[in-house]
Amino acid sequence: MRTSRLEAFSDGVLAIIITIMVLELHRPEGATLEDLGGSATSFLTYLLSFVYIGIYWSNHHHMFQLVRRVDGAVLWANLHLLFWLSLYPFTTAWMDETDLARTPLVVYGVNLLAAALAYYVLVLAIKRAEGPDGPFAEAIGRDVKGKVSPLLYLAGIGSAFLAGWLALVFYAAVAAMWLVPDRRMEAYVAEHGLAD
Amino acid sequence: MRTSRLEAFSDGVLAIIITIMVLELHRPEGATLEDLGGSATSFLTYLLSFVYIGIYWSNHHHMFQLVRRVDGAVLWANLHLLFWLSLYPFTTAWMDETDLARTPLVVYGVNLLAAALAYYVLVLAIKRAEGPDGPFAEAIGRDVKGKVSPLLYLAGIGSAFLAGWLALVFYAAVAAMWLVPDRRMEAYVAEHGLAD
Amino acid sequence: MRTSRLEAFSDGVLAIIITIMVLELHRPEGATLEDLGGSATSFLTYLLSFVYIGIYWSNHHHMFQLVRRVDGAVLWANLHLLFWLSLYPFTTAWMDETDLARTPLVVYGVNLLAAALAYYVLVLAIKRAEGPDGPFAEAIGRDVKGKVSPLLYLAGIGSAFLAGWLALVFYAAVAAMWLVPDRRMEAYVAEHGLAD
Amino acid sequence: MRTSRLEAFSDGVLAIIITIMVLELHRPEGATLEDLGGSATSFLTYLLSFVYIGIYWSNHHHMFQLVRRVDGAVLWANLHLLFWLSLYPFTTAWMDETDLARTPLVVYGVNLLAAALAYYVLVLAIKRAEGPDGPFAEAIGRDVKGKVSPLLYLAGIGSAFLAGWLALVFYAAVAAMWLVPDRRMEAYVAEHGLAD
Repeated sequence: MRTSRLEAFSDGVLAIIITIMVLELHRPEGATLEDLGGSATSFLTYLLSFVYIGIYWSNHHHMFQLVRRVDGAVLWANLHLLFWLSLYPFTTAWMDETDLARTPLVVYGVNLLAAALAYYVLVLAIKRAEGPDGPFAEAIGRDVKGKVSPLLYLAGIGSAFLAGWLALVFYAAVAAMWLVPDRRMEAYVAEHGLAD
Repeated sequence: MRTSRLEAFSDGVLAIIITIMVLELHRPEGATLEDLGGSATSFLTYLLSFVYIGIYWSNHHHMFQLVRRVDGAVLWANLHLLFWLSLYPFTTAWMDETDLARTPLVVYGVNLLAAALAYYVLVLAIKRAEGPDGPFAEAIGRDVKGKVSPLLYLAGIGSAFLAGWLALVFYAAVAAMWLVPDRRMEAYVAEHGLAD
Repeated sequence: MRTSRLEAFSDGVLAIIITIMVLELHRPEGATLEDLGGSATSFLTYLLSFVYIGIYWSNHHHMFQLVRRVDGAVLWANLHLLFWLSLYPFTTAWMDETDLARTPLVVYGVNLLAAALAYYVLVLAIKRAEGPDGPFAEAIGRDVKGKVSPLLYLAGIGSAFLAGWLALVFYAAVAAMWLVPDRRMEAYVAEHGLAD
Repeated sequence: MRTSRLEAFSDGVLAIIITIMVLELHRPEGATLEDLGGSATSFLTYLLSFVYIGIYWSNHHHMFQLVRRVDGAVLWANLHLLFWLSLYPFTTAWMDETDLARTPLVVYGVNLLAAALAYYVLVLAIKRAEGPDGPFAEAIGRDVKGKVSPLLYLAGIGSAFLAGWLALVFYAAVAAMWLVPDRRMEAYVAEHGLAD
């Protein structure tokens, strides 16, 4: 199977997730700067989730440049990833509406963790479809960031029991780590060309 | 007519349907795990409808790989399918808000059934446009699953009058049956190559 | 300029318009069939607007198969059309919430009329960009349906002052007239091939 | 990296932003023309933001016709632009709900300004990826409109402290200035052909 329609569908879902979160942004009650200040938490959690979805889109984009064929398992691993990402608007809004209470912070972290694991499952499904010696397996290499992220999410989830802001620091740290783009794929493409 | 724009439009509609359902997910009133537990039904019905839309997208994707040309009848058979699928967020939310009351469970089943019949009409419209001897007709074969599904939906609708959970078991069983990907198309493509 | 991105953007906007209308569907208060019956008007107006957006998408699709190049004027004529179509969820919901009161019925008709005129402006802009002798001008011919539709909308708007259901009959009649697909384009393509 | 998926994702996000704003349009309470008149401000601010998103889409479309390759920095500069644009529904609705109060007018202007600066950053990122002698750098030239716009936004923001309508005049003036399409790109393409 070609990858183009999987990419188009994923682009559509990710574009919608990243955009409908703005519908959940609480608009200020009044018309003053102080009223707007009351939306600051909303704004920051929106920014964090926007960056996360942007990271997944960017990595997804990089990754599928090296994928030549997909099978049913890859389709469903991809839908599985999209499922967890589709919950970001829900967990983000809950965290925001409860003013960053402990349980919602933990649930948000669990959502981040589940999406990271789903991404890992997708990588495995692609590896299996592509075969162990394909350009994909070679380019993805040891995938250090992919293995460190779940640990940092777990640390964030644990630290939510100490202090809410500490959990957010961990979650933001993972985002910052990924903002450095995934040079593996770009380097591989520069050297070997695209998959198709 | 080329199929590319029909595929792109369908991808767009399905991506939106699958994603806006999360806007209907009831967020917990409070900030505790017990509050989140109150959203469990929402969560499960969301998951069920997410999987259904994913199945339709996946089958749609497989099917159109073997379609070479479409006509006006196929365009409208496809829009007819999208219409019934677009009601999933509505029937899902009603079922969820009424705590799985009987009538909403029946209506959800009728919606599932209507979409299955619309899919069958789409298959017929494509067969007519492609001609009886095309690769599409050959690959789709006897279409056992497509013929069993409506019977299972009817069984689910009927069983809603006995017990709500039984209806859900039937609906989930159909989804599980389809999660096994449609090997007919993949096998055909592997042997004969793509349509275009 | 290539037409592919204009088509992709239009597909996206039309897919969203056709799908978000379901978010405006009023869900029944209770869990009985009578409660659902109270949503019948919502359901019918949703269906009508769904069919209208489907018609515009289908005609847009047919039309752009014969367009080889677009310029800035075509881009903006297309955005102008999308603007009026983007108001369908608004005018549909108002008509529905007021139980088909006269003014909302008239406003809905004006919206339909404005979209039809915007479509006509788009056709003119394409004709100018394509030149008078291109395949597009030849295929679109005298465009009888395009010229009859505004008259029927006007008749519907006028008849709303007599009886609401009469206006709806006119609006539905135009939709029915367009459901017969636009054979001009298909016939032209069958004879001459696609534009690119 | 190819530009096609960046374009498709941006098309998706812009299509959603331009369309979900209609969900924020306040529907009239009653069923009369006077009731509809109460939505006039909503309608005008919706139109203004619709035109702005249309302008960004049109310029984005023109620009990427001359871009041959993108890197991680361009991806993120593009996401950064989409972030500011995604706030338009929020700032538009706040401005509208407060009946064009001063602070929301200023905040809307700041949002417009931030998007304009983000667009400029995107242009710089593309220039760097393309190299100083590519067709893109040549076609974009001195970019007078891109440099005048921020000044007009600042003037609008400042004038909001004098009178709300004056700020809107400035904001509308920038939109009008951009409605004249970006002939640089079209002229360049006409002379030299597309980038790929």
